[in-house]
Amino acid sequence: MQRYFVPKEQFDESGVRITGEDARHIRRVMRMNVADTIICANNKGDAFLCKIKAFEDQSVIAGIESVLTSESELPVRITIAQGIPKGDKFDTIVQKGTECGAAAFIPFHSERTVSVWQKEKSEKKRLRLQRIAKEASEQTHRLLIPEVEPLMTLDQLLIFSERFTCKAVAYEETAKAGVQSGLPSLLRNMKAGNSLIMVIGPEGGLSPNEAERLKQSGFLLCGLGPRILRTETAALYLLSCASYHFELLQREVDR
Amino acid sequence: MQRYFVPKEQFDESGVRITGEDARHIRRVMRMNVADTIICANNKGDAFLCKIKAFEDQSVIAGIESVLTSESELPVRITIAQGIPKGDKFDTIVQKGTECGAAAFIPFHSERTVSVWQKEKSEKKRLRLQRIAKEASEQTHRLLIPEVEPLMTLDQLLIFSERFTCKAVAYEETAKAGVQSGLPSLLRNMKAGNSLIMVIGPEGGLSPNEAERLKQSGFLLCGLGPRILRTETAALYLLSCASYHFELLQREVDR
Repeated sequence: MQRYFVPKEQFDESGVRITGEDARHIRRVMRMNVADTIICANNKGDAFLCKIKAFEDQSVIAGIESVLTSESELPVRITIAQGIPKGDKFDTIVQKGTECGAAAFIPFHSERTVSVWQKEKSEKKRLRLQRIAKEASEQTHRLLIPEVEPLMTLDQLLIFSERFTCKAVAYEETAKAGVQSGLPSLLRNMKAGNSLIMVIGPEGGLSPNEAERLKQSGFLLCGLGPRILRTETAALYLLSCASYHFELLQREVDR
Repeated sequence: MQRYFVPKEQFDESGVRITGEDARHIRRVMRMNVADTIICANNKGDAFLCKIKAFEDQSVIAGIESVLTSESELPVRITIAQGIPKGDKFDTIVQKGTECGAAAFIPFHSERTVSVWQKEKSEKKRLRLQRIAKEASEQTHRLLIPEVEPLMTLDQLLIFSERFTCKAVAYEETAKAGVQSGLPSLLRNMKAGNSLIMVIGPEGGLSPNEAERLKQSGFLLCGLGPRILRTETAALYLLSCASYHFELLQREVDR
């Protein structure tokens, strides 16, 4: 069934008003009629089965039929701080990272970043990634859309990172040296509701200087398995491992 | 350091002869000289640190300096049988699947496959994917290049699947129904050296008829987490979970 994220203020007790691009999508692309059903999520963790009641001007009015329960959100919030990669790789990271349960993405300029975001274009790029996150959230049946934060420098990232329960950095040298990652112990130390920020370097990796600064700010250097992963694969590997740990292994224990 | 896969018969006790595209890469792209070092792997699970001794005609002759040990291969062999997806998504699946440790890939025609491979072009497509697997293996420091098998029908796939220890199919309806996957128990039942074939449908998923036929042939219907994944993300999720299970959690226990 088609899913749409609708701002919370467009909900009232009995129904929801869908506007803008989504209303157009329902009318023009899906060619839906009165009595057709859709799912509306409020991006606060709630989703509702809704039935279309009327088409008004540019809006679609739908009534709430029932509340949906879902386990489609990871019990821990994982934010991917990604050194800007080349080409359209950030699109892939946001799309697939959203599918795999990321809570937020932070683009940051790293010493070895090749593809620099010009200041005047960076908000446009952020909005584009935010749109990809919304579409991927709908497609993958998430209840929350991951936030795409504004572009940061490493200094800004270090300050921003203070709000997280756990801080880690994917450091390739750990994999190259054959050292097994502290990933299982990192995940085991997290409880439901905790937050993790994972810093991932661009194609050339983080510089030793950057790794050292992150380490001094309390970031754990963490390997992501024994193979060297491309920058655009690292976040997916981490999120899949976290999903396996919290959503498959741990829920199995809970039952 | 630059890595190359060299056929086993081009190795002798003291050295290795690199020919063809790789020899050209060493000379023209990397512009290496005598005494420069490279890593040569024989695709049988061995890798060697080698030093260039001479350039002969179109070949590069290198001496073996030492044997490298590595834990870059998953202890279980996982084959991804992938319903042909649209566009260049199969390239992504092979590239990232190789990074995440896949042993082989099988392209198959599924009822809902949109992008049909014409018979006369299918060997060309297979060779292209095989080349992507080789390059990704070198980049990710693997000791084995995943095989890309020829295009199969579901009937051929069912016969081929008899050689595997474990057989499973990623079935979206399991995720949609909120049923948690049997993935942890599937992985727990596998021992080092075992093999698994995982069938993944194309964009539209497998038809109920295909799922039923696989089930009757002994395939376990298996969900891949609580979110609906795109077809090109499913293999990466599975392989990352297997890596976490066998390479991070289990090796942690072994130490």
